[in-house]
Amino acid sequence: MGLDKINSPQDIKNLSIEELKIIASDIRKGILNRVNKIGGHLGPDLGIVEATIAMHYVFNSPIDKIVFDVSHQIYPHKMLTGRKHGFLDEEKLFEITGYSNPDESEHDNFIIGHTSTSISLACGLAKARDLKKENYNVIALIGDGSLSGGEAYEGFNNAAMLNSNFIAIVNDNEMSIAKNQGGLYKNLEDLRKNNGNVENNFFKSLGFEYIYLNDGNDIEKLIETFKKVKDSKKPIVVHIHTLKGKGYEPAEENKERYHWTIPNFMDDNQTFTQKETYESITTDFILDKKSKGEPVVAITPATPGATGFYQEFRDKLGENYTDVGIAEEHAIAYASALAKNGAKPILAVLSSFIQRTYDQLSQDLALNKSPAIILVFWGAITNADSTHLGVFDIPLVSNIPNIVHLNPTNKEEYIAMLNWAYNQNEHPVVIRVPYMECYSSGINDDTDYSDLNKFKVLNKGEKIGIIALGNFLSLGKAIKEELKFENINATLINPCFASRIDEDLLNQLKENHKIIITLEDGVLDGGFGEKISRFYSKTEVKVLNYGAKKEFTDRIPIEKLYQKYRLTKEQIKEDILHLI
Amino acid sequence: MGLDKINSPQDIKNLSIEELKIIASDIRKGILNRVNKIGGHLGPDLGIVEATIAMHYVFNSPIDKIVFDVSHQIYPHKMLTGRKHGFLDEEKLFEITGYSNPDESEHDNFIIGHTSTSISLACGLAKARDLKKENYNVIALIGDGSLSGGEAYEGFNNAAMLNSNFIAIVNDNEMSIAKNQGGLYKNLEDLRKNNGNVENNFFKSLGFEYIYLNDGNDIEKLIETFKKVKDSKKPIVVHIHTLKGKGYEPAEENKERYHWTIPNFMDDNQTFTQKETYESITTDFILDKKSKGEPVVAITPATPGATGFYQEFRDKLGENYTDVGIAEEHAIAYASALAKNGAKPILAVLSSFIQRTYDQLSQDLALNKSPAIILVFWGAITNADSTHLGVFDIPLVSNIPNIVHLNPTNKEEYIAMLNWAYNQNEHPVVIRVPYMECYSSGINDDTDYSDLNKFKVLNKGEKIGIIALGNFLSLGKAIKEELKFENINATLINPCFASRIDEDLLNQLKENHKIIITLEDGVLDGGFGEKISRFYSKTEVKVLNYGAKKEFTDRIPIEKLYQKYRLTKEQIKEDILHLI
Repeated sequence: MGLDKINSPQDIKNLSIEELKIIASDIRKGILNRVNKIGGHLGPDLGIVEATIAMHYVFNSPIDKIVFDVSHQIYPHKMLTGRKHGFLDEEKLFEITGYSNPDESEHDNFIIGHTSTSISLACGLAKARDLKKENYNVIALIGDGSLSGGEAYEGFNNAAMLNSNFIAIVNDNEMSIAKNQGGLYKNLEDLRKNNGNVENNFFKSLGFEYIYLNDGNDIEKLIETFKKVKDSKKPIVVHIHTLKGKGYEPAEENKERYHWTIPNFMDDNQTFTQKETYESITTDFILDKKSKGEPVVAITPATPGATGFYQEFRDKLGENYTDVGIAEEHAIAYASALAKNGAKPILAVLSSFIQRTYDQLSQDLALNKSPAIILVFWGAITNADSTHLGVFDIPLVSNIPNIVHLNPTNKEEYIAMLNWAYNQNEHPVVIRVPYMECYSSGINDDTDYSDLNKFKVLNKGEKIGIIALGNFLSLGKAIKEELKFENINATLINPCFASRIDEDLLNQLKENHKIIITLEDGVLDGGFGEKISRFYSKTEVKVLNYGAKKEFTDRIPIEKLYQKYRLTKEQIKEDILHLI
Repeated sequence: MGLDKINSPQDIKNLSIEELKIIASDIRKGILNRVNKIGGHLGPDLGIVEATIAMHYVFNSPIDKIVFDVSHQIYPHKMLTGRKHGFLDEEKLFEITGYSNPDESEHDNFIIGHTSTSISLACGLAKARDLKKENYNVIALIGDGSLSGGEAYEGFNNAAMLNSNFIAIVNDNEMSIAKNQGGLYKNLEDLRKNNGNVENNFFKSLGFEYIYLNDGNDIEKLIETFKKVKDSKKPIVVHIHTLKGKGYEPAEENKERYHWTIPNFMDDNQTFTQKETYESITTDFILDKKSKGEPVVAITPATPGATGFYQEFRDKLGENYTDVGIAEEHAIAYASALAKNGAKPILAVLSSFIQRTYDQLSQDLALNKSPAIILVFWGAITNADSTHLGVFDIPLVSNIPNIVHLNPTNKEEYIAMLNWAYNQNEHPVVIRVPYMECYSSGINDDTDYSDLNKFKVLNKGEKIGIIALGNFLSLGKAIKEELKFENINATLINPCFASRIDEDLLNQLKENHKIIITLEDGVLDGGFGEKISRFYSKTEVKVLNYGAKKEFTDRIPIEKLYQKYRLTKEQIKEDILHLI
């Protein structure tokens, strides 16, 4: 009896340990199959197979409610809860998401893709249960990496006050995406070394009961352990030690490489081309400063690989590199203070995760006018999962006073902006790193951006003005070319800045332009284009704003989104001609 | 020798303990004088007098750098660092702010007004020091209440990794603004009871060295303790136990009441009128649900008094009340999960502090369409300190997909919105509670807001349309009256919703309106008015947007701000007539 007979957690309740082991083996094959076909989270899922089986063996989902932190370890759960086709059936791999999603199954309680939320969410579920005098288990499954996030800590601090059932399973695989960082991890290490017995237990210090299992990949022991805590009447932490990547040797050996992977990772012949990227430009820039003995500090909130901060780069930087762990709030404040005290911090963060930091950007950074550099990667309209969209960062960041928000459009411009941001001491600077193939203009750029909010006019035309921000400059160029066929010589502008508008230029444009169009690779609401609309709203000039609609999209192909948002050159030309 | 001779920390270095005690007494008088004259933080400042004197006696500011968490306890420091006139000289009370501010003194390192930031900021200062091979002490002074914030925890986790000097002074006065909440506080209580010796020490679990002083108001012992940790080569926590409100008996006895106070608190004859407020309407609403046995949960992130959640209310609610401590991120996720599991959470939060929660609003709440209710208080253009502005919440909240953002304009409308939000199960609802005297229309309101984004037309006129959001409806009415003198019968609209626009209505308005003006009590950039401008930007209709400029203002009188932003009826009328 293997996974083929399992369609719900009920189906494993009466199996023997040996049968459960066969299912574990089948689940591993499913994980490897899916990830090799379409990419995804590999190491964390391989490591949590046994624990997931034991959880479903002991607990009674969906009556007992399980919350999966960040969802990096949810594949085995999906396979046990009626969704194995998403792993085994080539036709259906895309039918399920890689994340917790109640639309797929009653066994998922929330849509989750950001870290460190499970404790707070489970705490709310438990409190509602208690108020309604209901009786079941609430379980949060959280990885050690997620423990560094402030939201998780806030959740622990409060969940400890529940005078009722609350089970936090801490899946300790000794890794965040990269190596764990922070004082807490020494505590976890001590706990692992001493079979759960140390002088100062972090979880106990917060008021939790605590139980440790070193053999976190042993189904029998897991079942035994979970049975002990089932129906606990107090908040308890179950700390299990698992092997990240278990069952696939390369993933066991190179845990960071296989945390998440692109497809076809099993292909031995896969080669990585060493071409220039915006990531490599960034790391080259930082290494150059380091080599000159400058107090540059490259900072990542636990996503070094995603922003090109590879191991070699980290090794070269040494003390000039800080991985703060999953701790975006701290990352901003830390960068701000580094800058205030004369160092040169460069923080690289993904668009979706900078959402954690609005208040720190505002209070710790902008209000203090700290000249730190924040690089936002992956800001764009993409086919991403609804939890990892990159369209909201422009409104979030650019509307904060004092922040200079720059949007380079090619290699040379990016370097010029980095140089300017690095050498000035007046402004917090956020650079939205281009999300596209690296494009070199071949022309050295030494623009001085001290003259804030000065837009660059690339082509001086008339009638139609195209203001194309960042990634969308190429779209702007294409539209300009299209309009030539209509005998329109459109003005093309690279605004560079998204934080303010170039009022002088916009006033000049009024003289011989009837229509201004704005293009931005992000959501329209609260974004760059609306600033232009507001400026012209009391004049005769008409404005057409192009960008994403305010919505959570979910794995929709980019072309479809472009079509829907009228972001093709043909559609925009049509709109312009219609308005003329 | 008393405070009159002290103009910088250097001046206390050679004094005797007895002389320092006299200065402590003088400082207390200064605190009481200022706060009684102009209001401010009383209890935390009275409690930290001796520790501040000892800090400046032992450490060497500004070479040694001290970071004050949230600044609720910075008055004694200000008095010792050349700013005693702001406490003693009636003419100069307003010359200094109540918060840490480097523009005032080189002894302040950052502008700070939000909690839980000091550890991260000090961590950055220390790291920059180390990179530059400098040598001095970096000290964070953080209250026990601030320890519950995720940013503080993230900071501790990272500061523990510094292999160098880092001193966190934890000022434990057994209180947040209200009573502390969370598992951590049991740990602190145990530490206090056992003179710093417990089985699981929270700080030690994170890798800090630790030292405890129970007599946190004894200058001599404080000096002795600080001398022990001065020049420490490792991160260390100095946990001192102080008495909040010390030296002013009413503040010692009623710690919450005197955490912060309005002026003239010493006036025995001060009476509190029991008039109806938006706060009392809120608590009445919640108590009514509780009395019906419904699973309502009132939630505060440690600011119950500021939103009308007074002790009597909390006592009546019992298990239906949760103070999560200073933990806004958790508060949102917790509310979301409560709603998902059938409870009825109502979270009350201040505009300035909801800034901590963008990601949780987006991911934990909105993406999951949890029907929680978030009430935003103090959202308005005010004369607040730059760290407590209430103008940024509309752009922050309203541009998140799935959130319904409501803006009531009077008592009956507020109740109608509360009722609708409470009884529906589809949408996360954020209500921006009016920031003004409570105004009753006297007319029962039973609007069903299920028909989302439907604006209310209060007066159907022509030529000019006034769309006046929330607090500014009264300004809209005034402008309408002004325009009557010009024989213009303006259309007046209460949009209610800030999250989307009423496209049907806006299209209708095009027929007989030339100018639309928008009014919002918040920043224009990314806000409500820009949505209207964008809508009309491709039409003949002109739009004038009114609201605050994107800037950090600092204690500027509201009238001045209104004048600057052209938010008076006279200015707006002038603009309209000019445009016609």
